[in-house]
Amino acid sequence: MNAALVGVTGYSGMVLYQLLQQHPEVAAIRLFGHPDNSQVQPLVEAVPNFIGDQTLIEPLDPAVIMAECDVIFFATSAGVTTELATPFIAANFPVIDLSGDYRLLDPTTFTKWYHKPAPAVSALQQSHYGLAEFANAAGHSYIANPGCYATATLLGLAPLVQQHLIDPTSIIVDAKSGTSGAGKKLATSTHFSQTDENLQLYKVNRHQHIPEIMQQLKIWDDNVPAIQFTTTLLPIVRGIMDTIYAKSEATAEQLQAAFTATYADQPFVRVLPAGQLPTLKEVVGTNFCDLGISYNPVTHTVLVVSVIDNLLKGAAGQAIQNFNQYFGFAATAGLQLAALMP
Amino acid sequence: MNAALVGVTGYSGMVLYQLLQQHPEVAAIRLFGHPDNSQVQPLVEAVPNFIGDQTLIEPLDPAVIMAECDVIFFATSAGVTTELATPFIAANFPVIDLSGDYRLLDPTTFTKWYHKPAPAVSALQQSHYGLAEFANAAGHSYIANPGCYATATLLGLAPLVQQHLIDPTSIIVDAKSGTSGAGKKLATSTHFSQTDENLQLYKVNRHQHIPEIMQQLKIWDDNVPAIQFTTTLLPIVRGIMDTIYAKSEATAEQLQAAFTATYADQPFVRVLPAGQLPTLKEVVGTNFCDLGISYNPVTHTVLVVSVIDNLLKGAAGQAIQNFNQYFGFAATAGLQLAALMP
Amino acid sequence: MNAALVGVTGYSGMVLYQLLQQHPEVAAIRLFGHPDNSQVQPLVEAVPNFIGDQTLIEPLDPAVIMAECDVIFFATSAGVTTELATPFIAANFPVIDLSGDYRLLDPTTFTKWYHKPAPAVSALQQSHYGLAEFANAAGHSYIANPGCYATATLLGLAPLVQQHLIDPTSIIVDAKSGTSGAGKKLATSTHFSQTDENLQLYKVNRHQHIPEIMQQLKIWDDNVPAIQFTTTLLPIVRGIMDTIYAKSEATAEQLQAAFTATYADQPFVRVLPAGQLPTLKEVVGTNFCDLGISYNPVTHTVLVVSVIDNLLKGAAGQAIQNFNQYFGFAATAGLQLAALMP
Amino acid sequence: MNAALVGVTGYSGMVLYQLLQQHPEVAAIRLFGHPDNSQVQPLVEAVPNFIGDQTLIEPLDPAVIMAECDVIFFATSAGVTTELATPFIAANFPVIDLSGDYRLLDPTTFTKWYHKPAPAVSALQQSHYGLAEFANAAGHSYIANPGCYATATLLGLAPLVQQHLIDPTSIIVDAKSGTSGAGKKLATSTHFSQTDENLQLYKVNRHQHIPEIMQQLKIWDDNVPAIQFTTTLLPIVRGIMDTIYAKSEATAEQLQAAFTATYADQPFVRVLPAGQLPTLKEVVGTNFCDLGISYNPVTHTVLVVSVIDNLLKGAAGQAIQNFNQYFGFAATAGLQLAALMP
Repeated sequence: MNAALVGVTGYSGMVLYQLLQQHPEVAAIRLFGHPDNSQVQPLVEAVPNFIGDQTLIEPLDPAVIMAECDVIFFATSAGVTTELATPFIAANFPVIDLSGDYRLLDPTTFTKWYHKPAPAVSALQQSHYGLAEFANAAGHSYIANPGCYATATLLGLAPLVQQHLIDPTSIIVDAKSGTSGAGKKLATSTHFSQTDENLQLYKVNRHQHIPEIMQQLKIWDDNVPAIQFTTTLLPIVRGIMDTIYAKSEATAEQLQAAFTATYADQPFVRVLPAGQLPTLKEVVGTNFCDLGISYNPVTHTVLVVSVIDNLLKGAAGQAIQNFNQYFGFAATAGLQLAALMP
Repeated sequence: MNAALVGVTGYSGMVLYQLLQQHPEVAAIRLFGHPDNSQVQPLVEAVPNFIGDQTLIEPLDPAVIMAECDVIFFATSAGVTTELATPFIAANFPVIDLSGDYRLLDPTTFTKWYHKPAPAVSALQQSHYGLAEFANAAGHSYIANPGCYATATLLGLAPLVQQHLIDPTSIIVDAKSGTSGAGKKLATSTHFSQTDENLQLYKVNRHQHIPEIMQQLKIWDDNVPAIQFTTTLLPIVRGIMDTIYAKSEATAEQLQAAFTATYADQPFVRVLPAGQLPTLKEVVGTNFCDLGISYNPVTHTVLVVSVIDNLLKGAAGQAIQNFNQYFGFAATAGLQLAALMP
Repeated sequence: MNAALVGVTGYSGMVLYQLLQQHPEVAAIRLFGHPDNSQVQPLVEAVPNFIGDQTLIEPLDPAVIMAECDVIFFATSAGVTTELATPFIAANFPVIDLSGDYRLLDPTTFTKWYHKPAPAVSALQQSHYGLAEFANAAGHSYIANPGCYATATLLGLAPLVQQHLIDPTSIIVDAKSGTSGAGKKLATSTHFSQTDENLQLYKVNRHQHIPEIMQQLKIWDDNVPAIQFTTTLLPIVRGIMDTIYAKSEATAEQLQAAFTATYADQPFVRVLPAGQLPTLKEVVGTNFCDLGISYNPVTHTVLVVSVIDNLLKGAAGQAIQNFNQYFGFAATAGLQLAALMP
Repeated sequence: MNAALVGVTGYSGMVLYQLLQQHPEVAAIRLFGHPDNSQVQPLVEAVPNFIGDQTLIEPLDPAVIMAECDVIFFATSAGVTTELATPFIAANFPVIDLSGDYRLLDPTTFTKWYHKPAPAVSALQQSHYGLAEFANAAGHSYIANPGCYATATLLGLAPLVQQHLIDPTSIIVDAKSGTSGAGKKLATSTHFSQTDENLQLYKVNRHQHIPEIMQQLKIWDDNVPAIQFTTTLLPIVRGIMDTIYAKSEATAEQLQAAFTATYADQPFVRVLPAGQLPTLKEVVGTNFCDLGISYNPVTHTVLVVSVIDNLLKGAAGQAIQNFNQYFGFAATAGLQLAALMP
């Protein structure tokens, strides 16, 4: 299996490259940059932390890729896949797209939230939303890998919404992310002197992952009208924690049982025993999503805590899950990762 | 004005001592420890960061204090004021108590949340809950200084609850605190290797500040049945941020106006302009509580973000506010502090 | 006393403005930006953390300043004072310059290390290098405030070099700084995702503070040929720690005594007792330089640990020391600051 | 291959367990605690971050281990291996000992630096000091795995000392470590509120890794009399950086060449190109030691920067290197680890 990767210089791309290097079914990895950038550059020059890695980043050439590779991963910024993926879609060549370009079926919604032109409707209709625990990528040559916040949120809400255990108008998501979620681009909000020892809210109710969350929730229960979605930048690098609130008339035991049953056969979702809530550290460095449930009978409120490593389960790790599904490899191939302890 | 301070070795006590040293109306500060600890020790030995400060920490002696001082501050752990304050209460000697011992009027509630014996009912009835923006300590010789989470939460909820702008059954408080809120005691949860690059929830719906919040909310609106209260330990030292959610049928303008009007004359509460939400850094090092309001008309949810420095506005700073009120000093005396920038 | 401040938007300028606001001898502060920037802007718009501060930042106008102010502070980037200070120098108007432009007497050295044109020699000759413990700014209308690394290093080396207690060829300075020393400018090295949980060396033996250190050391002992100077970026915001090594044939007692005697009358240098070494936290938020000395008789090596808050003692605090010296105010006026504890 | 592991609850033990789980030659891992602790406990109860891992920690029983396992790893505190290893030594059963107990050949030196009784001289004489790049563990049934600081320091000094490129009396090591090096034990110095935004020196010239460094340096060059060794606690969790200084009359090219040649065939030591110095992030999560060399011809001083992940190359990773050497597995088996990026 030869894999092509576009966008290795971004954080998701860096981590995806590391995963592909250790994947038992991947023989070779080819790295590509934007076709307009005709300069061929060794990886170590573009990303100095890849000490000594002289693999060349070549300008993207669809013909070469389709001739010499078996799959292409796009770990590119919003808008870039729209620009570059067309020949692959036309050829039904397998694409795993970590960007947000092909997640939303409705082009109007895309443009509203991303402030960019949407891909063609025909292309969007081919796209498979690869939330790995609830969809199987087999047979879908274009896989839109979910966003990091969307992954943490949807896995935390799925049992509640699918089984109608909550008031669908009451969902509040208080989501927090480390700075790696904001990418490599320099910005005042991620300057160390500004981020450290601080908390900063951003894009409250305006985060571009909201529409893909709503699109999926409505598939599960069309009665969910909207969610309250708050995003806070944490003074850490890796990890997302969602604290999710909703009104529920179920009992603590029913809620716990719903989660346990939903994820019983899922290798990457761990439902903690009743009474326990997850910490970030237990998932950073892994592809796990850990879930803890706490029901307050006084306020009739269920709290779900959902934690992931935003670059693994929230990006590159889930991309490997989709890769494994598409090609029929073992679900955990290339993903048996150790948490960073301590 | 001579001030006595019990508990200078704890974080609140350390900061209170610094404030008293710079207070224009304080001539001298006497430091005291527990009477059972008969050893007299220089401050620098007990708290090495007070380089060169040879002020002695003496065993508490009420007679000496009442003869030579004008006020006593207790910055002691739960249960200690209950044990030590009786002679001062009997003599109507001014006490400003930073502990939780005298905040709850109902001794049963105290014992339920603090797992300790409550003070005598007669003493509790003398106690004044010193939420400085909504109560005046003048004439009250026993002042119970509010808890840090209680301060951030009550200032964030006051306009909404007092003016009945929200559904009283819908209040959710997602509160986050730095490690200084957990005090100096060694614990696994505040070991650097455990706290750093991590988020840890603790005491969800069981934090001991919940009953004092409810006691005050019910004074403002007896229809508030309970609140959902989540507490998360952040990988920072100083600061509390509450994100507070409630259902509201008011408009964004009405909500903003309610906050602006409520705090128009308060020197230590800053309501940010509409569309802005506060960060922690803008208050750390100061006695300010900054508030930002964001209304989501789609979910009919108001989000209030409330930030304070937990050791200042949430403890020692508010204690000085109460001190100023009691003795009739200027409201801002000793509290014109610069935020730590950056 | 009316003070003019150019460069309030940088970190040193922000802190200097805070100090001036609390200085007992300062009646009013006028803020100025570059004269090319004709836009008048309220401070809160330029630096959002100054919540509610509507003080205007005006374009620099020397005539206005000389007519209406008593002193001007430049907290500007390298090269800017050279460009703007000439009329003030010509008029002998008091200037306190936090930049590096007028610290080096030799224009060739300036250009070599700063890669910029140097000020005129005549102007350089008027400049007073304001290392406050070893020079008195009284009578010097142009005061070049020392650099942050230079301050920590020179205070740590002064007794050793002045009293010839070390081998002058053996000086090694391993200096570490928080990110605020690198300023507000966005850079990959200070992106939170890069800085956090990391250490990065930079400008080893090439830092622009080296020549001002050497200029001063040679005044004290012309036999010092050069120093080894390593600079490391720490994952913290505020503070510099130097660990300084040199070969010495003196005894531990002689070394300790030399430091104690040198700084006996200095309010802002604290020599720790023998056997103790300082931590950063004890000085952050203050104008202190704390020094600890440890002699190793096996290797004949003295270790001096010097810690400062780079924005206070290393910049704005020392500028106030020079301001106090020039105008004859008390040495500690406006500088009785509390350390951030914890 | 069945491996026994004593001490999985400490940080080195936790990481070693993770490595053994992924090692291609390890079929099963048995976990053991102190024999006095007769309680059998599932791993997840002892170390909650091992979510769902029900592997039992059994009381140590040498007979069981020697019958059912092929090797035993001790990741225990100082003194514990001395107490427990005797039966294994007597039987020549393979032991890989991550503690400091058997690193020093001279029992008097051990007792002086560790303040504990030393193992029997006969046992010490059997011990192999497993600095993996300079010793081969094949044939040595008792392997003393080097300390973390010792590993970073010796790899940084080896070419200089072995090839007599420096003045042997001039070695200064300014070593910095994250808090994981201090272990899991609670202490004020590693309380988050004390460690964060701080630097703390500790055990200057008294760290217990100094004698094993000297023991090895003297094997390479008996003219090295002593080293200056400073240790600083960093506000990070993982990683050690040494900045090493020595006087040298060699040229920059000779020094660079010496490092390149020494480590040409070593898979886990990366000598950076001339002009580059390593950062911590490039090794955290890996078994690499990265080295950068900078020569200052003005001061005749060579600076070597040596970085490792203290729990991998400095502990568990090097233990696997020794395991691979002893059993003749590939040098990199089980150690192809990805750096944490970002």
